[in-house]
Amino acid sequence: MRIGVFDSGLGGLTVVKQIKKILPEVQIIYLGDTARVPYGTRSPEIINKFSGECANFLEQKNIEMLVIACNTSSAYAFEKIQKEAKMPVYEMISWGVKEAWEKTKNGKIGVIGTRATIYSHKHKNEISNIWERACPLFVPLVEEGEIEGEIIEGVVNKYLGDMPKEIDTLILGCTHYPVLAGVIRKVVGGEVALVDPGERLAKELSKLIKINELSQGDEYYFTDMNERYLQVAQMFLGEKIMGKVQKISL
Amino acid sequence: MRIGVFDSGLGGLTVVKQIKKILPEVQIIYLGDTARVPYGTRSPEIINKFSGECANFLEQKNIEMLVIACNTSSAYAFEKIQKEAKMPVYEMISWGVKEAWEKTKNGKIGVIGTRATIYSHKHKNEISNIWERACPLFVPLVEEGEIEGEIIEGVVNKYLGDMPKEIDTLILGCTHYPVLAGVIRKVVGGEVALVDPGERLAKELSKLIKINELSQGDEYYFTDMNERYLQVAQMFLGEKIMGKVQKISL
Repeated sequence: MRIGVFDSGLGGLTVVKQIKKILPEVQIIYLGDTARVPYGTRSPEIINKFSGECANFLEQKNIEMLVIACNTSSAYAFEKIQKEAKMPVYEMISWGVKEAWEKTKNGKIGVIGTRATIYSHKHKNEISNIWERACPLFVPLVEEGEIEGEIIEGVVNKYLGDMPKEIDTLILGCTHYPVLAGVIRKVVGGEVALVDPGERLAKELSKLIKINELSQGDEYYFTDMNERYLQVAQMFLGEKIMGKVQKISL
Repeated sequence: MRIGVFDSGLGGLTVVKQIKKILPEVQIIYLGDTARVPYGTRSPEIINKFSGECANFLEQKNIEMLVIACNTSSAYAFEKIQKEAKMPVYEMISWGVKEAWEKTKNGKIGVIGTRATIYSHKHKNEISNIWERACPLFVPLVEEGEIEGEIIEGVVNKYLGDMPKEIDTLILGCTHYPVLAGVIRKVVGGEVALVDPGERLAKELSKLIKINELSQGDEYYFTDMNERYLQVAQMFLGEKIMGKVQKISL
């Protein structure tokens, strides 16, 4: 089973990590658009264009399933990609929503994401009373390894310090955010359930996928790559990037 | 006089601001690669490619002079662009160095910039004992309007808190940094001279340029544009973006 996964950059590797935890036998063909990351600050038109180019690249890699790991791409480009793809396509928004609905006890749900994701109101379309908050500084901070300490705590507090007390479930609507779960908990309180859409997606895939043969080894493609990217990639993936790492142009 | 100015994004508008202050009559043809900003976290190969595409675009706009406002582009792409261009090309590194040499009293100079700019050691090639520090979080913070308050002060302190006491002159080696002059002064002390290479470049241009006719109105091109970008653009430029704003593809 060859699963294509793309993301604006390295963050989607947190989704790959979840998939590989439950389905270690699948073969991952990953594309990170590191030359043009981040997507979450850009306009819908550009997000659509870049996401479509990522999907096209992976579709030519003989994949049997396509995962749009980037929540921003999921919010703006899923419909078009799904319509044109010849294989099943999965996105992140609906899994986050599903998991949150199942976890909440009082129906009070929040979602955090990039500016573009939040402004798309895709989560709000499903949960009309959802509390939404764009957290545009989380991605650059995580990419700089600022995942604990005063600076990130200050920023988390800036965005989430005023989260309504009644919210009992918070969707982490960006692939970078699971890495911040610890500091987010510190600010919003340990009793709030944090939803990682990638974790739920991995569970769903495990119900669908039957493995008949041994994996051929993963492939990782990036539109830009250097030593530091590799380090961050391994932080997200939680292991060394084994298999093929290749730099490509879209 | 038509001057082409390009930058990875909006930051180069601080250079335009300096040019227009001294030379209000020149016509600015600005290109901001907002669809692919930032450059300062990417690899030399990609920086070179993107910068070359920006230069090519402007060269076709009938400009008489080209300014590479982006310090990261200046560090990696100046030689190649200059070699191929049919008009004079100006970059930022050498003007920052020149101004710093003239301002320093004790010869102890520092430079801050993006990771790519600092790792290029272009300043160090000119000033061998220079103190260098990459400040990768400054760009995203400034773009989010975090230019005063606890968060930015914490980050400035993280990068500059250990700057050697003997440094009397600090080059702001990124177009975004002049906006942070206030908070940088607070951390490094008011007696340190801050060098804005864009200011010096504008002075140099004013010696060269003779205006014979009235400006035709500025033109601003961006590879991505939305309402928020426009707001940040005006913060950098210090005035409303008059003239033509157009979204283009490279």
